[in-house]
Amino acid sequence: MRRVDLNCDMGESFGAWRMGDDEAVLPHVTSVSIACGFHAGDPSVMLRTVRAAAERGVAIGAHPGLPDLVGFGRRRMSVSPDEAYALVVYQVGALLGFTRAVGTRLAHVKPHGALYNMAAADTALAAAIARAVRDVDSGLVLFGLAGSALITEAERAGLRVASEVFPDRGYEADGSLASRGKPGALVTDPEEAARRAVRMVVEGKVAASDGRDVTVRADTLCVHGDGPHAADIARLLRQRLQEAGVQVLAPGG
Amino acid sequence: MRRVDLNCDMGESFGAWRMGDDEAVLPHVTSVSIACGFHAGDPSVMLRTVRAAAERGVAIGAHPGLPDLVGFGRRRMSVSPDEAYALVVYQVGALLGFTRAVGTRLAHVKPHGALYNMAAADTALAAAIARAVRDVDSGLVLFGLAGSALITEAERAGLRVASEVFPDRGYEADGSLASRGKPGALVTDPEEAARRAVRMVVEGKVAASDGRDVTVRADTLCVHGDGPHAADIARLLRQRLQEAGVQVLAPGG
Amino acid sequence: MRRVDLNCDMGESFGAWRMGDDEAVLPHVTSVSIACGFHAGDPSVMLRTVRAAAERGVAIGAHPGLPDLVGFGRRRMSVSPDEAYALVVYQVGALLGFTRAVGTRLAHVKPHGALYNMAAADTALAAAIARAVRDVDSGLVLFGLAGSALITEAERAGLRVASEVFPDRGYEADGSLASRGKPGALVTDPEEAARRAVRMVVEGKVAASDGRDVTVRADTLCVHGDGPHAADIARLLRQRLQEAGVQVLAPGG
Amino acid sequence: MRRVDLNCDMGESFGAWRMGDDEAVLPHVTSVSIACGFHAGDPSVMLRTVRAAAERGVAIGAHPGLPDLVGFGRRRMSVSPDEAYALVVYQVGALLGFTRAVGTRLAHVKPHGALYNMAAADTALAAAIARAVRDVDSGLVLFGLAGSALITEAERAGLRVASEVFPDRGYEADGSLASRGKPGALVTDPEEAARRAVRMVVEGKVAASDGRDVTVRADTLCVHGDGPHAADIARLLRQRLQEAGVQVLAPGG
Repeated sequence: MRRVDLNCDMGESFGAWRMGDDEAVLPHVTSVSIACGFHAGDPSVMLRTVRAAAERGVAIGAHPGLPDLVGFGRRRMSVSPDEAYALVVYQVGALLGFTRAVGTRLAHVKPHGALYNMAAADTALAAAIARAVRDVDSGLVLFGLAGSALITEAERAGLRVASEVFPDRGYEADGSLASRGKPGALVTDPEEAARRAVRMVVEGKVAASDGRDVTVRADTLCVHGDGPHAADIARLLRQRLQEAGVQVLAPGG
Repeated sequence: MRRVDLNCDMGESFGAWRMGDDEAVLPHVTSVSIACGFHAGDPSVMLRTVRAAAERGVAIGAHPGLPDLVGFGRRRMSVSPDEAYALVVYQVGALLGFTRAVGTRLAHVKPHGALYNMAAADTALAAAIARAVRDVDSGLVLFGLAGSALITEAERAGLRVASEVFPDRGYEADGSLASRGKPGALVTDPEEAARRAVRMVVEGKVAASDGRDVTVRADTLCVHGDGPHAADIARLLRQRLQEAGVQVLAPGG
Repeated sequence: MRRVDLNCDMGESFGAWRMGDDEAVLPHVTSVSIACGFHAGDPSVMLRTVRAAAERGVAIGAHPGLPDLVGFGRRRMSVSPDEAYALVVYQVGALLGFTRAVGTRLAHVKPHGALYNMAAADTALAAAIARAVRDVDSGLVLFGLAGSALITEAERAGLRVASEVFPDRGYEADGSLASRGKPGALVTDPEEAARRAVRMVVEGKVAASDGRDVTVRADTLCVHGDGPHAADIARLLRQRLQEAGVQVLAPGG
Repeated sequence: MRRVDLNCDMGESFGAWRMGDDEAVLPHVTSVSIACGFHAGDPSVMLRTVRAAAERGVAIGAHPGLPDLVGFGRRRMSVSPDEAYALVVYQVGALLGFTRAVGTRLAHVKPHGALYNMAAADTALAAAIARAVRDVDSGLVLFGLAGSALITEAERAGLRVASEVFPDRGYEADGSLASRGKPGALVTDPEEAARRAVRMVVEGKVAASDGRDVTVRADTLCVHGDGPHAADIARLLRQRLQEAGVQVLAPGG
């Protein structure tokens, strides 16, 4: 039987600023990746988010990002592999602190934003991130863009991986994500996104921007948590997947 | 036989800025408390410092501080107990990440600067810090000012404690540290500091500013690492302690 | 004829995080105090906010705060007068940069949050802030809590001042603001707040928590911009003031 | 008669961390570029540095950098032209605040580190920086790498410029700086650097890595302030220039 994880980024509030509606999305997903203070999140937000996820029984991951709060970790920075290693150990450790304090378990790591995108193509950076995760806890699952260098390097480091796909994003013929500026880069109709999600999981295929099918491996589906209808979209995705006979549960769950 | 720990703050460099001569001090101490990025330290500095301490076989502690880089964590801030709990979990977790990555063990936690001083007198804050440390790892030793609320609350939380004394600082008749502005607040002669250290450990007493003796419990002696002669002073302290028949080793070591 | 300024804090978004509905409030106020990056705001937000205020012809002020982004500048910190002087010069200068770039004028300075509250009672801190403002531009108006040390020290420094009152906050018999936790500390009915506003301006009086009247000087009324109905409340206040024959315009306008 | 400016970066300390020996270098240079808090410097350091420069009668410039304290502004970041415009206005404004508070004049702006290097080649970024400087004060001189896009865009924006050369750095045949890793990238002999400096000013030429001469325009010579012998090197450069009949004074001085 087919299975897939449904993941969402969480804990992206900071201080007095709120982002996302974590409480509304939590019931519909099976994994959450929690910001660790570098691009979003602060210690109080992390504690609150880990508690909420633990209460729901959702798998908890660390979501380390670049040290760029004002840019939300979305701006590329020339960090060296050694710097990336250290900042991933730091942030994964910090979240590990909260999962221990709450009495729950840290299950995975998913790099955020520009760090995720850079690690998809830069082998040295990807290898440094994978080593950092493994060195903190070799039982962690590393989430990365399906088909990317991060997946390859994580496997090379001996980690379990989850190949991530984005049902609401357009794909290029080479399996990469279409740039946000391009027509078709964003799939705005939830039912269309759900159909793509089901097809990626069941058939392992997604229609690329040139109309041809691309083969993708879909271990985990990303739901964006910052839109106004995030909870509705997560619920719809889950319902359509289950109707298609797909089990929705966390990696290793 | 009498025993005492000799501890020093370390890893207080940040980015391109250097502070302290950690490599020179390391051979002479038995415990180090490593800054965790809020008042000093950054991920790369933390990694380098944990590695150096592990190579020397010195006991490693986390040194969490207030989120005040420009003030080096020395300015009091009105953080609530809940905020203090979260920022201690975060920083201890981050350092735990590095000890795991390096394959060594986190042994203790010592709050830094204003957080240390505030927790010496504020019971609610002290209790929050103690719970944070216990919730991350109940085997950690909490370092606090001898006779302070932090020691009381740590014991109440079921943690092992190390009562800290400062051989180069003046004491008031009530056992508190003399304010830095007062005459006699700083003991600048290393031999005098060493004599005070030996007496605190062997007799459990220190001469207060009014000339009378105060009873102190000395589980760990703080050596300041930021002066130009830090390594020499640490070596002298250790030598004089050993000559007096005191074993110098980390708590639980 | 009576006159009063209606002021609101603005530009409190930061990076990807939004706060307040500045565009909706702007048409109803005569002065805005713009966050300068230490407790809220970032360079892009500051530029956008200065442009929007300049287009509306609203008087623009700097809103410097403590360096505490995660605490939104609301946590007291033990900054020295010298540190306060420097951080006010820095932030006022930064906002001055934006008013020059946009081709408009910087009119006033209003300290934010804990800095405002600390400067209301601490004479040395108040004097340092007043000197900082005067040294950057002696033509600036300094906003401070009516009857506070900040007003006294600003006048002593030769600055023009605007005494600020809060129609939606309870007052103590000594003219200070009631602590937020106390019953009656917040006036939630907009019509009631408007009645208090009119009376403070026309009669120079407000009913304190013990029922007796307190004399207040009301040069500027603070409208809070972060509630869901901020724009409606600002409009109502302005309307009720104008119906009472009060001119609503910026200090010096 | 030939003339040139001798400039040095200053005010790069931060909080408790010291960098450079500004007091020792100040007597030997004619311009200083002062860090503005994003990559180095803090409000108290900026105040102290502006005061020291004003007392020496040295021309004062702002040295804005990328928001990357831990990386000292040396790591490239993908900031958009709009972001760069805003962060330059902010930082130049902040330093302008200090020059006004001290009663002196802001004379120039020199971007720092990665921002300087990116603006040397990226026309849109260079144009945004030039507009930011001009919009704050059209009388400011913009310092940029000789022959770079920043010089071109600053002139296009109507600003006065100072073309900067580096006597202790190797040059490529196209007039760009040799990468730090390459042999000959750093000129470590002070007399050799002085000879190169004199030749760049008097003949407008420098020997490139391939041995051939490159034509350079040298309005200002950069002295690095962070080495142990910075003051000695600055003094030697100035002496050798004066011996060669070159006037050493600030642009417009």
